[in-house]
Amino acid sequence: MAYSGDPVLASDLLFRPVHSLIDQSLHSRMGATTTNGDGFGIGWYGEGDVPALFKSVDPAWNDANLRELASQIRTGHFFAHVRASTGTPVQRSNCHPFRHGRWLWMHNGALFGFHDYKRELMMAIDPALFGDIEGSTDSEAFFYLALTYGLEEDPYGAVEQAVGMVEDLGREHGVEHPIQMTVATTDGESMWAFRYSSEGKSRSLFFSTEMHRLRALHPEVKALAELGDDARFITSEPLRDLSGAWQEFPESSAGVVRPGHAEVRPFTPRRAATVL
Amino acid sequence: MAYSGDPVLASDLLFRPVHSLIDQSLHSRMGATTTNGDGFGIGWYGEGDVPALFKSVDPAWNDANLRELASQIRTGHFFAHVRASTGTPVQRSNCHPFRHGRWLWMHNGALFGFHDYKRELMMAIDPALFGDIEGSTDSEAFFYLALTYGLEEDPYGAVEQAVGMVEDLGREHGVEHPIQMTVATTDGESMWAFRYSSEGKSRSLFFSTEMHRLRALHPEVKALAELGDDARFITSEPLRDLSGAWQEFPESSAGVVRPGHAEVRPFTPRRAATVL
Amino acid sequence: MAYSGDPVLASDLLFRPVHSLIDQSLHSRMGATTTNGDGFGIGWYGEGDVPALFKSVDPAWNDANLRELASQIRTGHFFAHVRASTGTPVQRSNCHPFRHGRWLWMHNGALFGFHDYKRELMMAIDPALFGDIEGSTDSEAFFYLALTYGLEEDPYGAVEQAVGMVEDLGREHGVEHPIQMTVATTDGESMWAFRYSSEGKSRSLFFSTEMHRLRALHPEVKALAELGDDARFITSEPLRDLSGAWQEFPESSAGVVRPGHAEVRPFTPRRAATVL
Amino acid sequence: MAYSGDPVLASDLLFRPVHSLIDQSLHSRMGATTTNGDGFGIGWYGEGDVPALFKSVDPAWNDANLRELASQIRTGHFFAHVRASTGTPVQRSNCHPFRHGRWLWMHNGALFGFHDYKRELMMAIDPALFGDIEGSTDSEAFFYLALTYGLEEDPYGAVEQAVGMVEDLGREHGVEHPIQMTVATTDGESMWAFRYSSEGKSRSLFFSTEMHRLRALHPEVKALAELGDDARFITSEPLRDLSGAWQEFPESSAGVVRPGHAEVRPFTPRRAATVL
Repeated sequence: MAYSGDPVLASDLLFRPVHSLIDQSLHSRMGATTTNGDGFGIGWYGEGDVPALFKSVDPAWNDANLRELASQIRTGHFFAHVRASTGTPVQRSNCHPFRHGRWLWMHNGALFGFHDYKRELMMAIDPALFGDIEGSTDSEAFFYLALTYGLEEDPYGAVEQAVGMVEDLGREHGVEHPIQMTVATTDGESMWAFRYSSEGKSRSLFFSTEMHRLRALHPEVKALAELGDDARFITSEPLRDLSGAWQEFPESSAGVVRPGHAEVRPFTPRRAATVL
Repeated sequence: MAYSGDPVLASDLLFRPVHSLIDQSLHSRMGATTTNGDGFGIGWYGEGDVPALFKSVDPAWNDANLRELASQIRTGHFFAHVRASTGTPVQRSNCHPFRHGRWLWMHNGALFGFHDYKRELMMAIDPALFGDIEGSTDSEAFFYLALTYGLEEDPYGAVEQAVGMVEDLGREHGVEHPIQMTVATTDGESMWAFRYSSEGKSRSLFFSTEMHRLRALHPEVKALAELGDDARFITSEPLRDLSGAWQEFPESSAGVVRPGHAEVRPFTPRRAATVL
Repeated sequence: MAYSGDPVLASDLLFRPVHSLIDQSLHSRMGATTTNGDGFGIGWYGEGDVPALFKSVDPAWNDANLRELASQIRTGHFFAHVRASTGTPVQRSNCHPFRHGRWLWMHNGALFGFHDYKRELMMAIDPALFGDIEGSTDSEAFFYLALTYGLEEDPYGAVEQAVGMVEDLGREHGVEHPIQMTVATTDGESMWAFRYSSEGKSRSLFFSTEMHRLRALHPEVKALAELGDDARFITSEPLRDLSGAWQEFPESSAGVVRPGHAEVRPFTPRRAATVL
Repeated sequence: MAYSGDPVLASDLLFRPVHSLIDQSLHSRMGATTTNGDGFGIGWYGEGDVPALFKSVDPAWNDANLRELASQIRTGHFFAHVRASTGTPVQRSNCHPFRHGRWLWMHNGALFGFHDYKRELMMAIDPALFGDIEGSTDSEAFFYLALTYGLEEDPYGAVEQAVGMVEDLGREHGVEHPIQMTVATTDGESMWAFRYSSEGKSRSLFFSTEMHRLRALHPEVKALAELGDDARFITSEPLRDLSGAWQEFPESSAGVVRPGHAEVRPFTPRRAATVL
């Protein structure tokens, strides 16, 4: 889940909606696995220059510290993730969101065959960034590949190239459909999201309707008044069963949200002319 | 899951059957919760005078240490449990099995209203045992109440009295159906099991068919030859879809298994004349 | 460590002073044990009605989450503790600070012989509070005994009676010097501290010199300008080697700090006429 | 600590000697850090084809599971390690011993400047082994470099080349003394040990005196009778203050122990003609 808007309490974002992220751990209805219990993480922008992270391998639903902290964090820019491991160890350094400078990154899905081409993918990452990689997941390597391709300057282009490269590598290693992904990434001011899979059957990704319209649709829902005009959510599953509140990202699409602006556009992987 | 019989590798007990206990964490089909992810524990009899315990709050399915250890434990008497907390903290001291001397105890279910009468129940426990209580669960308190009523001499009678006491306490505090339970307990030679609920709708509990009969029913299943003649399982769900292999404990029943003997009999809570 | 004063970043309190609390984990020079590695906890007043807690069994010095969170917590009222277990399990529910309503409590030391008289001590706790006890430590039981004796109305009197009761119980069970303690407790506005041991050889406890005087003593130390006029610390060891900055609590003493007021006075255990 | 000889209980190896490994966590007198609290691991040969591992990030001295398991493991070939992190995350995948096939590896010390040349070192590792690397430590990378240079065929030669390569890389990156190491590695039949540092001031490493001689020296020590004739220990600190029981590995030396044979010889890093 990603939130952008006026400062709110993280506990309201995590625990109040009818189908909150923490419920998602147990009842991930549209997700690929039945539970998401291999750790969780939250990232938010507050004091200081870089976003803060609280990540843990305890399943999100029984972590007392998470509940305590969420009630104390008031922020206008918030990422939350619950993890289902696709093979790499369950450890804090393999939990999302991943951070580099002011950027956060979350990825649901997998790079199939990663174990077989991991070395080549790692070699494609900018040597100056290599030492910053903390964990062993495909998701983190994917993030660093996108950074290598210029995520900080042109997120759309960087992810297009990163996905193109992953698909090339995967197919060289006999993987027919190399990637499954929904991605959310942010620099603390804008949030980008991506929905794509090589097979054309991507996991779900939703964004919330613009607030003015939503309040007009549902004057009876008082909670909407507590959210500011710029409030936006991007989630893998709708947070609440409220008609008209959620719109699905189309297959092979990407988008960006910032105060006063939101857009969705097609997403096509790009084969880079040279690797680096 | 409880096993009694010739020594086998714990990894065969946990990971080989089609519907092993570890799968049970994720797909607990007949259990009350959809997942059992609040910790696990195994207990077994090997070196020394008392059984050994390996318990952890990590969900059973992603614990690398469990897989490593299970491949090294060869034992003829084995208990395994995955926990779904009914409110008390998720911590190692609240994981089952609980141990006292040579005895192990596992309980699935709950003592409803426990938080409200906990003090009275704790006061009913033998003062000499009070200091041995490590955790804060209803299940452990229930164990110590049974020990107080003579579990080590007469398990059937002790559990009948403990349940009677819990039902009295619960009803005094306005709880209509105070207890839901399946219990397995052992002294390293015999295993006792109990299935009962105040409401008369008890969670499931199964025992395995006697081995001679089972091998005759299914000559095609080679794995049965690896189990000795005295092999017996008591589980909350069948380990394997094999017709005739599993028999359900009736409502309000109890039983015992030891080499060469197995029985099932009715279970009726007993009101003690005096508390202590 | 306890801090009261203008809001500051928790990371400045934990990580900036020369001899910070986190260093204390490794180099607890005056403490009874050489390391304090059995968990840590912080408590602070911020959003909402009750203080928040972040507690963990990981040693404080390698907890990445603690560093992240501390950089985001800005508070005027802060408790921090690193634990050296005196026998009870290392688990989050046994970490300090303990919380009840708006109150926090930390205790360094031990109730010797606790395991032998635990039942009697637990029975002396107000039945209405009994169910709130989460862990199994002597320190938490001590807190609830003080609450029973009216901590929320008269902290000095409540702790005097609680200590008196513990000493009586201990001596009945053959313990010559039943208690060793430094205690800090707060309701979010005032902080009380206690230094006492039955043997008359109490662990160390210090409070910081009043800020005006300290700035006059050390005009060369710029960091002092960042602390407001009402800033006060109570710590088990001096945070910084700065002459005149720290004053030791005398043997058998207690004190209170609130904005504009600080006092230290003698502490004498009181035998209650009746237990409850 | 490494042990080779007749099968003994792991709890005797860990907890009985006067200065056991677990005490070493707290009082590591000759080690570089005052405590070794960033996790522990044990490896042993028992059932099956590969050694088993039990590793955890909990400090060794308060891990209840370790005590339970150690009392159940009877083995003739045992490795135990307590970790002091030199910068990489504290997580199970960064705990020693590391395992590859039948081989175990433990390393005390550091590859200084590792973060700066990590990419080049990883690229020097055999591509077929790259995907097996689980963690992010210099110690594990060092192991895989030694495997690349033929550890499984010629341990002495492989480690000589690996160290030579690390020293070259380090000096290219401006590190004057690139490596500090004591290493123990085994295939389940022989144990190799290495003591070396670029600076010529290596951490301590000891081996135990041959048993016949030791029993003759100390007929009064009954515990020696419990150890078989082939019993050998290699430890970073002497397990017990017993004169004549421990001999120090010289600076820049290596050795091997197998039933009936033990030797120590000089160790000199070797510059490989080509990297791969």
